[in-house]
Amino acid sequence: MASPIVDIHTHVYTPAYLDMLRARKNVPYVHDPANGADSRLIILASDDDAGTALGQRGRPVDASYSDIEVKLAFMRKHGITTSVISLANPWLDFLEVDDAQVWSEKINNDLEETCATVNKDSKSISEVKTLYAFGALPLSAPDPSIIVNEIKRLKTLSHMRGVIMGTSGLGKGLDDAGLDPVWAALEETQTILFLHPHYGLPDEAFGGPEVTQRYGHVLPLALGFPLETTIAVTRMLLSGVFDRFPNIKILLAHSGGALPFLAGRIESCIAHERKFVANGGSTQGPVRDVWTVLNTNIYLDAVVYGEAGLKAAIHAAGGHDRLLFGTDNPFFPPLSEEDATWPSVTTNYKAIEGTLSTDKEAVKAVLGGNAIRILNLN
Amino acid sequence: MASPIVDIHTHVYTPAYLDMLRARKNVPYVHDPANGADSRLIILASDDDAGTALGQRGRPVDASYSDIEVKLAFMRKHGITTSVISLANPWLDFLEVDDAQVWSEKINNDLEETCATVNKDSKSISEVKTLYAFGALPLSAPDPSIIVNEIKRLKTLSHMRGVIMGTSGLGKGLDDAGLDPVWAALEETQTILFLHPHYGLPDEAFGGPEVTQRYGHVLPLALGFPLETTIAVTRMLLSGVFDRFPNIKILLAHSGGALPFLAGRIESCIAHERKFVANGGSTQGPVRDVWTVLNTNIYLDAVVYGEAGLKAAIHAAGGHDRLLFGTDNPFFPPLSEEDATWPSVTTNYKAIEGTLSTDKEAVKAVLGGNAIRILNLN
Repeated sequence: MASPIVDIHTHVYTPAYLDMLRARKNVPYVHDPANGADSRLIILASDDDAGTALGQRGRPVDASYSDIEVKLAFMRKHGITTSVISLANPWLDFLEVDDAQVWSEKINNDLEETCATVNKDSKSISEVKTLYAFGALPLSAPDPSIIVNEIKRLKTLSHMRGVIMGTSGLGKGLDDAGLDPVWAALEETQTILFLHPHYGLPDEAFGGPEVTQRYGHVLPLALGFPLETTIAVTRMLLSGVFDRFPNIKILLAHSGGALPFLAGRIESCIAHERKFVANGGSTQGPVRDVWTVLNTNIYLDAVVYGEAGLKAAIHAAGGHDRLLFGTDNPFFPPLSEEDATWPSVTTNYKAIEGTLSTDKEAVKAVLGGNAIRILNLN
Repeated sequence: MASPIVDIHTHVYTPAYLDMLRARKNVPYVHDPANGADSRLIILASDDDAGTALGQRGRPVDASYSDIEVKLAFMRKHGITTSVISLANPWLDFLEVDDAQVWSEKINNDLEETCATVNKDSKSISEVKTLYAFGALPLSAPDPSIIVNEIKRLKTLSHMRGVIMGTSGLGKGLDDAGLDPVWAALEETQTILFLHPHYGLPDEAFGGPEVTQRYGHVLPLALGFPLETTIAVTRMLLSGVFDRFPNIKILLAHSGGALPFLAGRIESCIAHERKFVANGGSTQGPVRDVWTVLNTNIYLDAVVYGEAGLKAAIHAAGGHDRLLFGTDNPFFPPLSEEDATWPSVTTNYKAIEGTLSTDKEAVKAVLGGNAIRILNLN
């Protein structure tokens, strides 16, 4: 029997979520062209260009975004035995205050039901068609206790294995002290948080909107997304989140953005920052260092598309035990219909197998064993 | 005799340059407090906060910034036998159109004379006290031919080994077609360009000015600087600079910012970008892939402060032959007077020795041999 392969980075827009987006006229929203062409999903402000026809804005949203049968076919095609599905960005950040709780419960219940329905025909972890899920949080709710309650409620749903969240938190970033009840609840319930980018960087970072758009989505997706994650987790570190909540567990998308590579520079800059108490300054600054955080609090997916990045990720994580295979499905589909498998997936398979070629057990661990152990998938 | 150790990332503000900055009242400028305290160097717009007293803005600029004897003492203390000095940021980008040529010639001649004066007492490459330099370019000159002429003139100065430049180019970034004569001249003369960040990212990337300032210089220096470099070189790649000038040589500061880690993701995003001709789109897009660029056009310094980053850099560069030791002196001095050596320097020594521990020749190559070969320092 082949070893299990677990995809922990695989998104769905649930049917109810897409219907909600269809009812909206502002980002994020879904537009259904009158001519019967694929719906358009407009989730980024930069995609909502008034100069572009509605039917051309954003990206086409086909069945791969919401139909679980398409997800299962993708899994079979790539030998993936288990997927931990998560709502795709922008999750629920944009909801009206009074809608947050209802929608998060609805979507999380839908995810749970999808997993239960699929799994009832599946007898073991090694069969293709096993699903688990990360839940979404009602971050715009009027009181953090509503978020905390949903974190606790998710523990009662048998297929939930954590939560997915963006980098804005309650709207002020992840170094906002207002999030402390959320960190406390995640820590207390030992709920893993899958931290995922959505906003990227402001266009000015790339030279302005004209430069950004000149190269399609390359600059925002290849550089903006990873930096958003890196900035978010660095702000958590600098504000002492990992000191106040030393047992929280964060799974970082895209192998941490650029955190493994920049960790040394971050640590050096902290050590040389006169503003911090440890250096005679007046601001507390972080106590736990970045390497300890990487080896204690952080898990990394292996969605980094090359051995160079994967080597850094493995070293920063203190070994391969904290790395978990993922695909980022349904994003980055093949551009040619002839592709038997998705190059975006096979690139990551090859990077894992190439980097860990001398250690077959390590390859198995990154492809599935680590996820089974860390997310308790048995 | 010990193996030579060459520092290719070490800056000076030449005395004439500092005098020029003293005559200015806008960023960049130098302020001399009336009370005899250290001068203040204000080079970033974010440091020029009207709410802060002039004598507290920016950073103190002491003799380490301009006195070559202090540089030589630093080299002796750290066992560095040779330094390739370069003007520190922001170089000459801000000069009035008519001043650019005069100042670049003046500063480059000063650098040349400093090297000649120091080296006349030095008999071989292995002696402490050997200097070479990267020149500065008159980027604000009214015509690119003035820049081209300075590139050619630098070839007649016996201690010049390349040029240093920021990411703004002629003001529009490094994907500006107006720079083509400069790339052509660099390629024709086989002049290495040391590409170095200065502007970082807009404060909005970090959550706004209040968030940025909350953590001192950590976010701009640890994350903004590396991303500025990564964005700049990615824009060069996307615009086809490496296709049009396949023999240019670029040395990237801070091990490429985050380029080695993000190279796989960049390549994947390019391969999935429908806008590019290769994928059926209408925009040319790059032909030479990022891995080829990293193995053909790019050199990396080893200023990355940890083994995780260095492993990625070495793998991305196709081996250790394209990595060059550097210190970033005079920045990141020790905060404690008791430090015998600078932690910012020893961290990089340790990372090199740790990463390449099984290959002593490789350690020697990164510490000095590569620079001697690539920059022709014999």
